[in-house]
This record gives sequence, C-alpha cells and structure tokens, in this order.
Amino acid sequence: MAENAPVRGCMIIKPYGYAVWENMQRIFDVRIKEEGVQNAYFPLLIPLEFIAREAQHVEGFAKECAVVTHHRLESDGKGGLRPAAEAKLEEPFVIRPTSETIIGDAMARWVQSYRDLPLKLNQWCNVMRWEMRTRMFLRTSEFLWQEGHNAFETAKEAREDALKMLDAYTDFVEGALAIPVIKGEKTPEERFPGADATYTIEALMQDGKALQAGTSHDLGQNFAKGCQIKFQGRDGKEEYAYTTSWGVSTRLIGALIMTHGDDDGMIMPPRVAPVQVGIIPVLRDDADQDKILAFAKDLKAGLATLGLRADIDTSAARTPDKMWASIKKGIPVRVEIGSKEVDEGMVTSVRRDLGRDSKKTLSRDAFLNEIADVLNAIQENLFARAQERLKAHIVPVKTLVEVEAFFKAEKPGFVKMPTALLSDPAFEAIKKDYGVSARCMPLAEPDSVLVARAY
Amino acid sequence: MAENAPVRGCMIIKPYGYAVWENMQRIFDVRIKEEGVQNAYFPLLIPLEFIAREAQHVEGFAKECAVVTHHRLESDGKGGLRPAAEAKLEEPFVIRPTSETIIGDAMARWVQSYRDLPLKLNQWCNVMRWEMRTRMFLRTSEFLWQEGHNAFETAKEAREDALKMLDAYTDFVEGALAIPVIKGEKTPEERFPGADATYTIEALMQDGKALQAGTSHDLGQNFAKGCQIKFQGRDGKEEYAYTTSWGVSTRLIGALIMTHGDDDGMIMPPRVAPVQVGIIPVLRDDADQDKILAFAKDLKAGLATLGLRADIDTSAARTPDKMWASIKKGIPVRVEIGSKEVDEGMVTSVRRDLGRDSKKTLSRDAFLNEIADVLNAIQENLFARAQERLKAHIVPVKTLVEVEAFFKAEKPGFVKMPTALLSDPAFEAIKKDYGVSARCMPLAEPDSVLVARAY
Repeated sequence: MAENAPVRGCMIIKPYGYAVWENMQRIFDVRIKEEGVQNAYFPLLIPLEFIAREAQHVEGFAKECAVVTHHRLESDGKGGLRPAAEAKLEEPFVIRPTSETIIGDAMARWVQSYRDLPLKLNQWCNVMRWEMRTRMFLRTSEFLWQEGHNAFETAKEAREDALKMLDAYTDFVEGALAIPVIKGEKTPEERFPGADATYTIEALMQDGKALQAGTSHDLGQNFAKGCQIKFQGRDGKEEYAYTTSWGVSTRLIGALIMTHGDDDGMIMPPRVAPVQVGIIPVLRDDADQDKILAFAKDLKAGLATLGLRADIDTSAARTPDKMWASIKKGIPVRVEIGSKEVDEGMVTSVRRDLGRDSKKTLSRDAFLNEIADVLNAIQENLFARAQERLKAHIVPVKTLVEVEAFFKAEKPGFVKMPTALLSDPAFEAIKKDYGVSARCMPLAEPDSVLVARAY
Repeated sequence: MAENAPVRGCMIIKPYGYAVWENMQRIFDVRIKEEGVQNAYFPLLIPLEFIAREAQHVEGFAKECAVVTHHRLESDGKGGLRPAAEAKLEEPFVIRPTSETIIGDAMARWVQSYRDLPLKLNQWCNVMRWEMRTRMFLRTSEFLWQEGHNAFETAKEAREDALKMLDAYTDFVEGALAIPVIKGEKTPEERFPGADATYTIEALMQDGKALQAGTSHDLGQNFAKGCQIKFQGRDGKEEYAYTTSWGVSTRLIGALIMTHGDDDGMIMPPRVAPVQVGIIPVLRDDADQDKILAFAKDLKAGLATLGLRADIDTSAARTPDKMWASIKKGIPVRVEIGSKEVDEGMVTSVRRDLGRDSKKTLSRDAFLNEIADVLNAIQENLFARAQERLKAHIVPVKTLVEVEAFFKAEKPGFVKMPTALLSDPAFEAIKKDYGVSARCMPLAEPDSVLVARAY
C-alpha cells in the first residue's frame, strides 16, 4: 500500500494504496458536489504574514512546518548543490499545513454581498506538517486530504453546515469504508483553535486505540474576522461571515487497515477495494492455458458489465503464491479457475472475510447473478464485525477511580464518563499518566464524554 | 477561470477553471489506465542529492526551484514569524520541479527481474519551478500536471511507448479539447536533456504563436543508468531498463482559452465544458417565477438523464447580465426560458459558437432529442475552425531568406523549412533576432522542421 520515502517522515503511496484513495475520492467527491460545494485549487506556498495573522488559530501545528527560504540552487564546488545565497527570498514561504488562511484571503475578495453567500469551496491537495514521530498513513509529514471551507450569512446556517458535513463523513466512512464511528463534539480543550465547536467522528482500531477519522468545525465569525470576510447584509449593514471547515485525509487508509485487517493481511471493503474480484488461473498443464485464460477473461468481462472491478493474476508466480497474494491484499472475493472449472463452466470462489469455509462452486451464470449480493454481504459483514467490536469497547463508568483502573489495566477501547468529571484535576493527572485524551462528547449523549488512547 | 495568488508567480484556479481541469483529468485518466498505467503518489520534497545526481538531465530548470531549508517557525519578537535558526535542516529539500528522480529511485527498488517489466507509473500532482516571467495557466511557478514514467525491457518497447503516449495526447487534445496539433519530434537542440528522442504535440494559438501542448520522451537507458534501474534479463544477465516519461499540465487550460476564445470571451468545447447547457430563467413577473423555475428544473433533470451537465442561473442578476455571463463563460448552449416558453412547452436555445443567428425554438422533447447532436456539432465546429486556422498558418519555405522575411513581417504561425537548414549558422541568428525556435520535425514530414514564435 505504501512505503517510507527517502524523505524524512514522508511516504510513497504505491499503486494499490493509491487506488484505494482514488476510490475514496470518487465516492466522497460526488457527495461534496451534491452539497453545492465547488472544487478549486489554491497555492501550495503560504506567505509568512498569513500564518502570523492567524497564529492564534494555528498554534498547534503551524510552527512545525517546511519553510522555503531560497529560489535557486547552485553548485557547492564539491559535486553537490546548495541553496544560492543571492537567491534568498525576502519573505520566506511555508508549505501549506492547511489552506485556511489563503482560502480565507480569497474569500474576503470574493464575498461582497449576502448574494455571494453561501460560498462553499473544497480542494483535494497535499499538505505538510513537520511531524516528529511519524507512522505510515496515520501521521506523515506530507499527506493528501480534502479541505472544505464554507461561508454563510448566519450563525445558524454555519452550525447546521458543520453538522451536515459531519453527517456526510459518517455516511461515507460507515457506508464506503465499513468503519463504524461515534459522532461527537470535541471538548473545549480539544477543540480546533479558533472554532466555536469542533465535531468529530471517532473510530476504534483493533488494537483498542481510538482514531479521529474526520472533523468538521463551526468557526463562527472568528475566522472571518481574522481574514476580513465581510459582506453587506440584507439590511445594508456590513457584517462578518460565519464559516465552517471540514477535512478528511489519507489517514483514513490507515484506519481501513487497522479496522479490517487480520493476521493474514488486509481485508478490503468491496466499495473501495481496487480489485473486488481477483481471478486466479490455476495453470497446471500448458495445453490448458489458453482455454483457462479465455474463460478468465470472459468472466472478467462479465463482471465489468456489472460495473465490478476484477483482475486476472497472469503473473509467473506459482498458484499458491498467487492465492496468498490475493489474501494479503484483501481482495474481497477470490476466484480460482482450473481446467475442471472451464470444462464444467463453473466458478469456484472464496470470500476473504470468511476464508476457506466459504469456498463454493457455482455455474458461471449463477456466480454472476449473485456476485453483487455477495460483495454487499461482505461490506455489511465487515461493518457489523467492527460495529460489534466498537459497542463492546465502550465501558460506562461513573468515577475517575474507575477511569484510572480501566487504563491502568491497559484495557482496550473507550470509557464513557460524565462530562462533569472533565474539570476534575484528577482527570488531568490520568490523561498525563496514561497518555489518554477526551475523544468526544457523543451527540447522542451530550452529558457523557469518551476517553481513550488514540492515534 | 483563475486569478493571481498572493504568492509570486502562482495562481488560484477558481471553481470554473478547476472544473475544466477535473473534466480533463477524468477523460485522460481513463485513457492512461487503458494503457495499463497505475497511478501512485510520490513525495513533494526531493533530497538535494537526487537533483545533483541527475543534474545533467535537469540542467534546464532544476536550479530555479523552491528550496526548503528549515522545519520550524518562531516568533521574530515583532509580532511576526521567522524560520527558527535551530531548526535548520542538515540537508535542504527542493519542491519537486518534476518527480523523475524520486520515481526513478523507487523504480530501482521495485524492478528486479524482466518479470517486473513493463512498469508504468503516473501521478497527478502539483510541481513548482521558480519562473521569472509568469503568465496565467501558461507559465506559473506552481502548476498541476500528470507525469508518467514507464520502464521497459527493450529499446523497441520504450520507443513504441513514447510514440503511443504521444498518440494518446493527440487523441485527447484533439478529441476532447478540440485543439488540432502537429505531432512531431523535437530537434536535438530542443530535446529534453537526457532523452534519446523527445516527441511533442504543437498547437497554434489565435495570436499566431505556437504552444507545446504535451511531450513524450524516449529516455533510452540514460535515465535508468542515472537511477540504477536494473533488471535480470531473460538470459540471466543484468541490464538497465529503457524508460519513457510523458506529461501534460494545466497549461492546456491556457491553450483552450487561446484557441477557442473570441472577442466576447471563452468558448468551451462541450466535452470539457463544466456546464454544457446553461439555462436562464427569464423572470419578468413574480407570478410566473414558480412555473418558469419548475420548467427549468425539469429541463435540467431531462438533460441529466442524457448524461449532460446543465445549470440554471438562479442568481439575482438581470436577464441581460445572465446572458452575458453565459457568453463570457463560453457555455456551449444557452437556453432561455420565459413565460411564453413554459406555456407552449418550448425551449429557445442559442449556440455559443454561432451566436444569435443560431437561435431557435423547439418543443422540449425535440430539444432533448437533438441536444447531444448539437453539442457534438459544436465540438466538431470548434475543431474544424481551429484546424483550418492551423493549416492556413503553416507556410512552406525553401530558404532562410524566406524564413527571415516571414518573421520580419511578423507573420503569424509556422514556417516549414528543410531540416538541413537547422545547422546553418544564419538560422541561429534568426532564432535570436526574432525570438523564434524550432518547434518540431513533423512525424509525417521528417525532413521538414516547423519554426515559430512560441509560448
């Protein structure tokens, strides 16, 4: 899926991993556009003054970022290159850790009247934060994401939008990635700096740690004031806009791996699987090769007409190695075609989520008739499994003594405690001692707060 | 479509311009994948040693690039920020001007045997070159592109691939963008450094200048040697791979504007037009609003079922302003719906390429029946017009005296001269005096070379 790049903290997203991201983008981009959001593209480099202007908003990460100070290289006289001293920039630039400020600056120009609102912008791009401790997909210095930035006329619209985009993330992450999440609001302490409210979807990884899968911020007028996004209202008076921002990133690929993988490797939810049906020609006798490959190609074509993504492993590898590769990649359905299958017009298939016990042989037509349902069943099974795991790992408690006991015993998952305990000094000590944090106050139970170790 | 960003030499691609790029990407990405190319993502930052290693290949642009030297900001004590001295990187990084070297480095790891070939990789990404003179879409410091990097077992395959990707570009640029091109090979002097052959598609802008719309390079083993892309061949011997690279960028949006625009603004070829049919509700009387909007929505839905992109201008602008906006944006077909149209179930439409003379009123059904054909006709008309212009602006000459006379008279377009004249010292003087260059040796006429002023 990915490997470490020869650049500290960065990754190379390999074709199989990138195909997952492309599928995610395709699915979520449709939803974004249904909400009336327009995609655009803003510059990679941010002037330092923009960062300074919003410094209170970006305190958390803006300081650890890649700084561009020169615009030319020159020979160092030793066969290498160095930044050319005379090409030092008068004002350095930062590689965007987020595009909040540069998009806000454009919004301030584009918004004049209430008629220009709502303005909903999104970009799919790379961003960079100089992370000290990195982990593939979950925390890398460079990552890919979408960042949405919406502006509204009223506080009510902005609040509704922040919650609507949280719903969009929930539908996407649960529906396409089969990852169940808890929708909640961040505690004031965990809130995005400058936000009136930060909403989050929190997922549970198989190792018992929580993972923030997406966030949606209601920025009130705070951000518009920083960027001077003003409009002439219906009453003729000038007013600051109300803005929201919302984002998900390639860290979702990490969430996918840690939610659905098993000891044998990955299990891909069919909706985002690069290959939904992996066809393995079982070639024992050279004489049979042509007819087996012809049958496999015909089956792939049949799957394509159903709109399904199939692939034939025509590599020179041995059959058991091909099967193993298919399992490791997590291809939802594996099909094995040997001479016998071709002669009888049959298809033998195995579900990745259920393993060899699910092996069955059907006629080609029967297989094609049921494959869409089988893929749906796999999608649902992966979600149900993860949902069960999530439910089993939310432990309600009433006191901080119980909270401490939970984490002292290194139990996996979340404790759910009353929000009143958040302000208890003993909670600060627990957070520090056990490396845990308040993940969210579930929207369904606003008087509770979930606490967990997290990525 | 775009505006200058508050970052020197960079642009903000606005939603309408970005939608064109999305349509381009969608169309060309399908073609890429048909060729067995896999998309992936490689890091934004390139270690300096990588650039140095390939310095002879990237001589042309690698030196003018954005250099990252620090990884943290700190307060400058005056309310601003500055790069933190203690966060200076031991080895600086360069923002990719192209990913040739970092992809080559990965290929060297991924390719071991002839069984790993061909390996065809592509990425859609942003790149940066510190351009001194910039021009919207055509030459900006940051731009978006796709860069393909393929590796093969034999020289023959690499040569065929370079030409195949040139054909893919030709089909795409002529078919989707309606921009006719001349397929050719660059002269040795204009060749990409390190390439055995550089192929190009050259287009003619309406102002008479040439524009290189896409390039495809056969790099032979030169690049593989630099990056150590080696494989064990069928005979068991270790050999260097043969590679190609190929790219097109957001400069194609500039080509689109300068090929099809007229005095009134842009004319969008339907295949990449963000909006193919722009519906303008002509609202005179409040009482009619609901029925007109309902009719417009129904028409839009009818177009959507045909797979067409339609939009209703529901802004508060006056009708003439809406019409003018539609013209300026170059929406291929404009539909006007007033009370009369609704009552009679009729649709009045105007083709952007033909103007008011093409105005006609049809029943809703008849309109929906013919609209796909109308859009095709617009696409073909735009191509035919540009094709005629291109053909009329290739002037065959036999001598450098004629070449000089052509450019002295500031004639638009190309002169086509015998390749033998390339080595005449007088040609060097002409290039310098008139700011012209050898654009390509047409594949169809390899003994000729086209010379022109160019973007």
